[in-house]
Amino acid sequence: MSESRKGDTVMRRAVGIDFGGTVVKLALVNDLGQIERRTSFPTAETSGPDSWIERTAAALGDLGVASDSLPLHGQIVGIGVGVPGFTDFERGFIYSLTNVLGWTNVPLADLMAQRFGLRTRVDNDVNAMALGECAFGGGRKFRHAVFVTLGTGVGGGLLINGALYRGAYSMAGEIGHMSIDWRGVRSPRGVGELELYVGNRAIVSRTADAIRAGRPTALREKAGGEPDRLTPRDVAEAAAAGDALALEIFDYVAVCLATVFSSIVYCLQPEAIIVGGGVAQAGDVLFRPLQHHLVDRLAPEFAERIVVLPATLGPDAGVIGCAKLAMD
Amino acid sequence: MSESRKGDTVMRRAVGIDFGGTVVKLALVNDLGQIERRTSFPTAETSGPDSWIERTAAALGDLGVASDSLPLHGQIVGIGVGVPGFTDFERGFIYSLTNVLGWTNVPLADLMAQRFGLRTRVDNDVNAMALGECAFGGGRKFRHAVFVTLGTGVGGGLLINGALYRGAYSMAGEIGHMSIDWRGVRSPRGVGELELYVGNRAIVSRTADAIRAGRPTALREKAGGEPDRLTPRDVAEAAAAGDALALEIFDYVAVCLATVFSSIVYCLQPEAIIVGGGVAQAGDVLFRPLQHHLVDRLAPEFAERIVVLPATLGPDAGVIGCAKLAMD
Repeated sequence: MSESRKGDTVMRRAVGIDFGGTVVKLALVNDLGQIERRTSFPTAETSGPDSWIERTAAALGDLGVASDSLPLHGQIVGIGVGVPGFTDFERGFIYSLTNVLGWTNVPLADLMAQRFGLRTRVDNDVNAMALGECAFGGGRKFRHAVFVTLGTGVGGGLLINGALYRGAYSMAGEIGHMSIDWRGVRSPRGVGELELYVGNRAIVSRTADAIRAGRPTALREKAGGEPDRLTPRDVAEAAAAGDALALEIFDYVAVCLATVFSSIVYCLQPEAIIVGGGVAQAGDVLFRPLQHHLVDRLAPEFAERIVVLPATLGPDAGVIGCAKLAMD
Repeated sequence: MSESRKGDTVMRRAVGIDFGGTVVKLALVNDLGQIERRTSFPTAETSGPDSWIERTAAALGDLGVASDSLPLHGQIVGIGVGVPGFTDFERGFIYSLTNVLGWTNVPLADLMAQRFGLRTRVDNDVNAMALGECAFGGGRKFRHAVFVTLGTGVGGGLLINGALYRGAYSMAGEIGHMSIDWRGVRSPRGVGELELYVGNRAIVSRTADAIRAGRPTALREKAGGEPDRLTPRDVAEAAAAGDALALEIFDYVAVCLATVFSSIVYCLQPEAIIVGGGVAQAGDVLFRPLQHHLVDRLAPEFAERIVVLPATLGPDAGVIGCAKLAMD
């Protein structure tokens, strides 16, 4: 993967489209990973592929790349789209989207190429974020890295030999479904999947249970009698302020994450694990115990060769990575 | 990875050396994966690199490839050595061997090249077995596969895009250290590592504990009052004969393996997992419950795209894979 740095000359640009369940973000991104223009529209303004593509056409107009007569068109190498669901990257095909209706078996890359005359790549949104972070963000120094995003769900992307690795059928990197307990919580995806222990819902429900059980904590007042309406950010803020329960919750999240991270290190031995997503915003209250428990769960020759780093592109990782998809 | 089939013409040959803790096996192997000549010597006949290389020189003489004057020399593309320990594949360097004294920080590839005038590659023994199985054995149809060997230890090798993937520092594929229980058995390698649940010792001690606890089983008579001297093969034979305890032991092994296999499938999504090693000789009593529990622990879209297959090269996987190392 080529690395672009500040000071280098911009040679190429692409459009990244981060297709989220709530909002569709579009950006004109250059090959230094810089966003030059951006726009967005609510996902709910569209209903299925046809109206989505027409709404996207208008948004591309906002970016100055909508039609052949506009000056930027010739400088755009293509469009990359990251979608929340299962895709076949080779064909640019969407099998289905997790939280968006009307998107089953859609040949989106072909439809986009027909409509806009631009080469289009379609990938899973977390793969796109991983690519963004590994090309321009927290992972840009590495050829072998694993990107993990922590939020409502837990997702991942694998960088192997400098390229995104999608597995045999474009579905690799589902870190959130890896098991941490062979006798653990059962779900339609298996037994003991990580996501059920460290996802947003797990963090909140574990906190709420402790409050209902009478544990003293500053979060009780914050919750105002409705502990289930707390957010992971509330818990992170309490932990940063030294609240014992909140620190304990993040230590638990860190142990569970460290268990899967140790398995990833023994299996793949990347140079780095890059951690992004909402829960990673917690910062030190997450990363400090995570580092501790990971070292505690690895043989020294593995522990001394792995680093865990926060993602650096924040909410822009998606659009930047999508654009990078189109540039590769 | 090129595939050679019966009926193809032999174009090249290499020497594979499977350096085990007990015996060193050498073979002249052609690029169809066929062994043309073989020899071996006890590891204990040597003490450290110098005497090992001299003993190897004699063994290469047995194979007809020891000196420049012998006819085969010109047809040998090189030597591949698989060793039981940590190596740096790029440099052909041995950091240390697990059960063989006198092998710390040895630049074996350089020493061999100097002594024999043949290009030499050095890799971890399980990587070599994985390469053998994926080039010529159970995995030869696949570009993305994971090889797992079950025995005293549990090891692994990763085939990614048709090539062995060694991770950032040549130490990837340590499947046996992946965790199946975040609150499980602690070891110097972590918490809940697979090997402590399904390695030879775990199988025997679990069986012995059940016998001592009074469980009815045909293995009681077989053990003759010393249940700790049973072998995994004894348990496998009892299971094949329908013994309830033995079947239960293999079901337990299968659940633990399926837990790690499900994590591997979610993370890497290979086409196949190839299972070899002594415990895999158990056959159906292992593979049947393994298949069942793996499907039970995967979402359907992953379960329907993964196959678990037995290794087919048996004890020859090592030498064949070592020779393949030298041919690549």
